[in-house]
Amino acid sequence: MERVEHRASFGGWQDVYEHRSATLDSTVRFAVYLPPQAEHAKLPVLYWLSGLTCNEQNFITKAGAQRYAAEHGVIIVAPDTSPRGDDVADAEGYDLGKGAGFYVDATQQPWAAHYRMYDYVVHELPALIEANFPVSDARAISGHSMGGHGALVIALKNPGRYRSVSAFSPIVAPSQVPWGEKAFGAYLGDDRNAWKAYDATALVADAAERLPLLIDQGDTDEFLDGQLRPQLLQAACEAAGHPITLRLQPGYDHSYYFIASFIGEHVAHHARALKA
Amino acid sequence: MERVEHRASFGGWQDVYEHRSATLDSTVRFAVYLPPQAEHAKLPVLYWLSGLTCNEQNFITKAGAQRYAAEHGVIIVAPDTSPRGDDVADAEGYDLGKGAGFYVDATQQPWAAHYRMYDYVVHELPALIEANFPVSDARAISGHSMGGHGALVIALKNPGRYRSVSAFSPIVAPSQVPWGEKAFGAYLGDDRNAWKAYDATALVADAAERLPLLIDQGDTDEFLDGQLRPQLLQAACEAAGHPITLRLQPGYDHSYYFIASFIGEHVAHHARALKA
Repeated sequence: MERVEHRASFGGWQDVYEHRSATLDSTVRFAVYLPPQAEHAKLPVLYWLSGLTCNEQNFITKAGAQRYAAEHGVIIVAPDTSPRGDDVADAEGYDLGKGAGFYVDATQQPWAAHYRMYDYVVHELPALIEANFPVSDARAISGHSMGGHGALVIALKNPGRYRSVSAFSPIVAPSQVPWGEKAFGAYLGDDRNAWKAYDATALVADAAERLPLLIDQGDTDEFLDGQLRPQLLQAACEAAGHPITLRLQPGYDHSYYFIASFIGEHVAHHARALKA
Repeated sequence: MERVEHRASFGGWQDVYEHRSATLDSTVRFAVYLPPQAEHAKLPVLYWLSGLTCNEQNFITKAGAQRYAAEHGVIIVAPDTSPRGDDVADAEGYDLGKGAGFYVDATQQPWAAHYRMYDYVVHELPALIEANFPVSDARAISGHSMGGHGALVIALKNPGRYRSVSAFSPIVAPSQVPWGEKAFGAYLGDDRNAWKAYDATALVADAAERLPLLIDQGDTDEFLDGQLRPQLLQAACEAAGHPITLRLQPGYDHSYYFIASFIGEHVAHHARALKA
């Protein structure tokens, strides 16, 4: 593990590390924000999963989350969105292949060798963080768009592992929208039953833990009706009695301007759960 | 004037406009953040000048200033750093030509036709803002690196025009450092007497107004000793009895992580002066 960026930020450090991932059979980067409190104490960790086309840089340069992480004493870890490197399969278009790992473990060729972002985010990355940084065992997870999908799915599939979950503009029902159908068809194959394991709207019916879902969604988001459709998850939650807070934010779009405007509330939400 | 971006941000709007500038004989863009208070009141304006390689996007995507502008009810206007377009002269390297206007009015060829960023920022841009947005006549100015130089020079040369001035990591003595010598030699010619009109350290001795200078400078900034040298301005201020607050911030570098960490204090500083 090599530190490749180290920048003072709000009294702490915004670092970027590169490491060889056994899970992904790939060299990848992740960002970690260490607030000033990390000098003297073990802190809880918020994992942030980014959206299509992103790498570990987008969130740390655009969301402005460091201020709130410093205020609440929370470490934020932001991985890349896919394996990387010349030997890693890719595809035309921004919504499959590099930058579009969709937080699944691919079973189909040519993807299965490297595209194991679910396993990486749930197991290898936290183990690495917990072995190398001053962290407690309190974890939260959040993300944006494809990463909001990842956060919801990972929290729903791993009861007890996260104290809280939230999402911005998530793809809540990938099995029912074009982005998800393309990616899941490629990574998981044609059997739609296999897709349910990575579909928040399908998973919520059988969730073993009733972790409340906090979702912010801009109401002028260009992807709202075609790709995101949060009302599908809301209906599934209502049917299952699963707690959800879906907030439609008037005038906001799909961009980091939206995330920046509400990330403070999300960090505060996670900090409350992480310190409870 | 055409609005080319319109994004909800902290209850207000982060907009980008494109217009034909008579001063620059060029089509250029500027960003304007309108906080929620702009719906109902005329607000003061903080002008932000960006550094080398930047355009109107860097500050609005990375500094996180919108939160503080919304908190204090201040409009922030961030222009591009040079004229743009295929007919505009350019040079090899990031520190001359496009993205490197240095906030001077060039007198030398091939620059003089378009490179008039001083005139643009002091006259045409504020006139455009004041004709088209809900602004009062209270103005402040700030910037980063080359833009910190621009803010200091413009405030010093225009007594009464700005209520407050601040800078992050400014080039305080362009006549004495490589970036400035290259740019001023090209834009203004070999006569170093002409350079004094755009050199904060030279201007402070004869400043007609004792507007306090607030400067934040990271002490691990890679450009500190070679290009920035804030102690030159501090010494000139002490000799002239001009008020200056120079804060060396330990561990901080030249990046937007540094700006983001302290922009809240700068916006608050300007808001106090703008509302006094």
